[in-house]
This record gives sequence, C-alpha cells and structure tokens, in this order.
Amino acid sequence: MGEHSSSDIEVVISRNRLEFLVDGIFAIAMTILVLEIKVPEIADRKSSSELWTALMHHGAMFFSYLVSFAMLGIFWYSHHLYYRFVRQVTKSMLALHLIMLATAAFFPFCAAVLGRYTTNPTTMVLYVGCILVYMACITALWILGEKQNILDPGLDRNTIRRYRRGYMRGSIAILAYLFFFIARACL
Amino acid sequence: MGEHSSSDIEVVISRNRLEFLVDGIFAIAMTILVLEIKVPEIADRKSSSELWTALMHHGAMFFSYLVSFAMLGIFWYSHHLYYRFVRQVTKSMLALHLIMLATAAFFPFCAAVLGRYTTNPTTMVLYVGCILVYMACITALWILGEKQNILDPGLDRNTIRRYRRGYMRGSIAILAYLFFFIARACL
Amino acid sequence: MGEHSSSDIEVVISRNRLEFLVDGIFAIAMTILVLEIKVPEIADRKSSSELWTALMHHGAMFFSYLVSFAMLGIFWYSHHLYYRFVRQVTKSMLALHLIMLATAAFFPFCAAVLGRYTTNPTTMVLYVGCILVYMACITALWILGEKQNILDPGLDRNTIRRYRRGYMRGSIAILAYLFFFIARACL
Amino acid sequence: MGEHSSSDIEVVISRNRLEFLVDGIFAIAMTILVLEIKVPEIADRKSSSELWTALMHHGAMFFSYLVSFAMLGIFWYSHHLYYRFVRQVTKSMLALHLIMLATAAFFPFCAAVLGRYTTNPTTMVLYVGCILVYMACITALWILGEKQNILDPGLDRNTIRRYRRGYMRGSIAILAYLFFFIARACL
Repeated sequence: MGEHSSSDIEVVISRNRLEFLVDGIFAIAMTILVLEIKVPEIADRKSSSELWTALMHHGAMFFSYLVSFAMLGIFWYSHHLYYRFVRQVTKSMLALHLIMLATAAFFPFCAAVLGRYTTNPTTMVLYVGCILVYMACITALWILGEKQNILDPGLDRNTIRRYRRGYMRGSIAILAYLFFFIARACL
Repeated sequence: MGEHSSSDIEVVISRNRLEFLVDGIFAIAMTILVLEIKVPEIADRKSSSELWTALMHHGAMFFSYLVSFAMLGIFWYSHHLYYRFVRQVTKSMLALHLIMLATAAFFPFCAAVLGRYTTNPTTMVLYVGCILVYMACITALWILGEKQNILDPGLDRNTIRRYRRGYMRGSIAILAYLFFFIARACL
Repeated sequence: MGEHSSSDIEVVISRNRLEFLVDGIFAIAMTILVLEIKVPEIADRKSSSELWTALMHHGAMFFSYLVSFAMLGIFWYSHHLYYRFVRQVTKSMLALHLIMLATAAFFPFCAAVLGRYTTNPTTMVLYVGCILVYMACITALWILGEKQNILDPGLDRNTIRRYRRGYMRGSIAILAYLFFFIARACL
Repeated sequence: MGEHSSSDIEVVISRNRLEFLVDGIFAIAMTILVLEIKVPEIADRKSSSELWTALMHHGAMFFSYLVSFAMLGIFWYSHHLYYRFVRQVTKSMLALHLIMLATAAFFPFCAAVLGRYTTNPTTMVLYVGCILVYMACITALWILGEKQNILDPGLDRNTIRRYRRGYMRGSIAILAYLFFFIARACL
C-alpha cells in the first residue's frame, strides 16, 4: 500500500511506536493463553471431588499455560535485550519484526494444541518449530543490526557478536533436535 | 453525549492518546486473529499422522492468519506514515479515525470467514471490501490533513500530494476490481 | 489488600498509569466486540448466495457491532473530555474509575445480547441501562472533580458546570426513558 | 534463551517497559472476564420475560464478573503501591513479576469457574488459592525490594516494613483460611 509511494523517501518508523506494538502483542498473547483453558463440564455441580477430578483431568492445559507463559516471557525479554540497543528502525527491521510478532501471536494456538494433544509427536514439532522461528528472527535481527549499523555505537562489538552467536547456536541446536525428532518419529 | 456540551469549545484530543488507542486496537486485532484457528478434533489422541492431517485440513486457516496479519501490519504502517506528520487532532479527524478503527477491529471476522470459506466469492467481496474501506479512510485522512492544514508545515506539499494520489489510485483500483469481480459472479 | 496498610498515607496513583489502563481497556473492549460475530455455518461451502444469505441473516450482529463500537468511542471520548483537566487522582476518583471501567468492559456482552435478541425489550433495558451507569459515573467524576478541587485551576468554573449539567441532564433523560420503557413493557 | 549469553552483564530491563507489560496484561485480563459470560439461549426470541429469566439464571456469572473485576483492580493497585518506589528492575524482580503476571492472567479462568460452580468448595480453593499466590508475590517483591536496596532511598524504612508486614499477615491469614476450609471439606 504505502510501498510504492514511499520508495524514494527513507521512511523510518518511530522507535517507541514499534516497541509499543511489540509490548501490546506480547501482553495480549500472554493473556489470551488462558482462553484456551475451558471450564470442565461436570454432572453434579456441587460435588467438590468431581470438579477436582475434572480439573486434574485437564492438568495438561495448566501445564501448557505455565510453560507457554514462561516461553512468551522469555521471548519478550530476549526482544528487550536486543531492542534497548536499537537507535532507529529500518524497513528490513520492521519486516523482520512483523514476522517475529506473527510468530509470537501464533503461540497461543501452539499452547492450545500442547494442552490438548500433549503426548502427540506432531504437537512437539509445531511447538518447537514455533520457538525455532522466533529464535531465527532474533538471530536475524542481531545480524541485521550489526550489518546496517543501527545499534548503539557505545555498544562493544564483542557483546553484539556474543549475543548473535548465542542465538545462532541456540537456533541450530533446536533445528538439529527437531530434525532428529522428526526422523525418529518417521522411522 | 459530549457533543452538545462541547459545541462551543474546539475540543482537540491529545495526539498521543489517539495514537495509543490506534496502536492498542491494532495490537489486539493482530493477536485475536489466532483465536479463529480452532484446535482440530481427532479420534486417536496420540496418532501423529492423524493430527498432522487434521492440521493440514485446516491449512486455509493458517494461510488466512498469515495474510491477515500481514494486511493488518500494512494497515498499521500506512497509518503511521500519515500520523507522524499530524500536529493536532481535529474532530473530523477523530471521527474518521473511529471509522478506520472499526474497520481494522472488524478484520479478524473477515479473516475467520476467509479461513473457513476460502474459495467462496462472497468471502472475497467481504475481505476486499474491508480493505477498500480502510484505504478510503486513509485517503480521506490525507485529504483532510491538507484541507484543515494540520500536517507538519515542514512537509513538502508534493509529498502530501503523492501520498494522497497513491492511496486514491489504490482505492479506485480495488473498487474497480471489486465491481468486476461481483459483476462476473452475478452473471 | 493495600487498604489497611496505606490508610495513613494519602496514596495518589500516577495520572498517566490510570490513563493507560483506561485506554487499554477501551481498546480491548472495542476489539473483542468482533468476537461476538460468529462465522455462519452453511451447507454448500462454495455457494456464494448461501453465504451471502447467512451473513445477511446475522445482519443484526453487524448493526450491533457498529452501534456498540460507536458507543464505546463516545464513552472513550467523554472520558478524555474530563481527564485532560485532571491534575491528580484521588482514591475516590480511582474507585469511580474502576466502576466506570467495569461498565465499559461489560459492554461487549450487552452488544452480543443486542446482536442476538435485537427486538427483545429486555435487551433494550440491559443496553440502555449500561449506558446509563456509564453516564452516571462520568457525571459523578465531574461533581467529584469540582468538589475535591483536583481539576486544572485554569479551567473556567462555568465550563465545569456546563459539562456537569450536560451529563446530569443526559443521565436523567435516559433514566426517564428507561422507566417509561419498562413501565410500558410491564403493563 | 538470553540467559547464557547475558550472564556476565547485569541486564536491567527498563522500568517503563515492565510497567507497560503489567498494565497491558491487567487491562486485558479485566476485559476478557466478560468473554466468560455467555449469551443465554432462549426458545422465544422476542419474549421479554424469558430472556430476563435466562439472564437471572446466570446471575452468578455477573456476580463473578463484578467480584473478579474488583479483585483485579485491587491487584493492579497493590502493584502500583509497590512499583512507584522502584528505581530499577533486577533479574529476580523480573522473574517474580512474571509469576505474578501469570497469576493475574490466570484469573479470568478462576472467574469463569466461580461463575459456573459458585457453591462448589473446589471453586473456593482455586479462587482463594489464586489470590494467595498473588499476595505472596507482592510480599516477596517488598522483601526483595528492601533486600536488594532498589527502592526509592527517600522512602522511610518503617513504611516499607509496614507494607511488607501487611501483605505477609494478609497472606498468612488467607493461607490459614484456606487450610481450615480444605480441612473442613475433607472431614
């Protein structure tokens, strides 16, 4: 839409406004995780033990809620670790952010699948695959930040490199695990 | 409600607070897109292939999620392209913003229809129609901004004109496509 | 919770943080209105006319969406008209805000009932009753603001009085309408 | 994710950004409470009395909505009482905040269970248990704040102590009530 008309001007979105969108999407994704936990149906409405059993029966949903909330918290924090060094937002960085946010906003679905089909191998592939895409985005953001020279100049180059390598190794490790997991499931 | 009592004072809403509402609504609309993707029901809970097939069966929903997330991202960005030049908010601009926000907040429904009835012509009319209304609002905002003289005075008039024309042509192109599409479907 | 321990210190919440909560709740309430519009079920997934008929059949839901979005927009704006004069937030103002926000957050339910049972008199009582509670809160905020002397001192007393009277008269008019409506329905 | 790579740098998240996440999650949790109130199904769509009876039948849901909204409001306020003295955010404080936010975001589920199985003893345990976890987090935040010396130095030590004791006593009282309640239900 705005792509054609703005091709000759370097449009840089405000740093604060993108941060705002990121924080908003994370806050919402974290909160709507709870919408996937359904109130169980029980026959005797006043039976304490029956409600307890029904809640325990859906224990995997609570487990999935806690794990996914923690994952989104770590996602949010790892974005913060990067973003505090960003001085300005370029177009390619904005595009990468949108992919990253689409992954984060997709997470409640992964959490719902995990809560329902916890022991299913496909769930694992979906869930870990989602984490992998997010980590790849963060890695790409660090590489981009160094390449486009948009990070805080006071920041040590070694620090950037350490972060970038950490995320890259993490991504490769997860990818390897995923391949191994799929291979074992298929054979 | 407040219209009568404030008719004699020119009430101008704070620039930041409207930006806040816009960003909040976009963040939420982008995130609740995921609520339309339902966890599929499968017979054998531990069957990896069955869950995989069920997810693939709902592939259109994932496609709709990605396309709609990108559309909302472009909507948000095109609002930003305009809003960074705005110095103050007038009443007519506020009214236009509310129409624009109602369109953006309505988008998750369009996405849900697209995910469910992907090949249905009516879906296309609804979805593209929603995009058209949004673009018309942005076009109207540019025209209004120039007319009411509320944009940044440092901004080149040619730049304003280029944006305005770009959105207007885009709107007309979409409108023409929509008419053509409906005409073909009806005949 | 904090009431006991803070009774001896006059705790005043930050003006910005309350504004943030208000804007956040309005943005969310406006956006989740769309969750009440369900995608219709049709037999022939590719039938354009069938989907069109099904959407038209739920026309009341779209009507309710638009009206309720506009109402929430007016609610939000009327809060802004008040809040821009507020210099500090007192405890009683905070309590009133929470009642006001509970009413605003409850609005999506009223909208859902309106979309489903549009012509039912009880719907009207619920919907208009919700508007009444909101207006009463805004009226109370104006009265409180004048009484506790927490509004901008540069603000003309006549302006305050005009606002306060406007909302009070509006509230009384709605209350009278509601009584008349209930009386007619019961007799 | 970022834990390994940042172990040698003391990473302190921005005070404002954490406040933003907290406020966002509270605003959303408060608003999605309403999604748990379902529009009742009635046979005669135009029958005023039938809709009224159906709404009254779900009266517990409205009661649960109001109580839970007030509880979240008190949660939010008690966080504010603490946070306004915070000068910087340490890692342990961030971790505590995430637990606290997971509890707050979980509250809409507790509210839904309360609205459905109001008189069931298990509901009471779940609901009060959730409040207990939140209060324990706030207590821990006060203890941590004093220990890590990150609160406003202008703040009187006695004030800190009074807050901390107030929350600790409240937590213990709720815990004792919960034990007594469970014991009575089991015997």
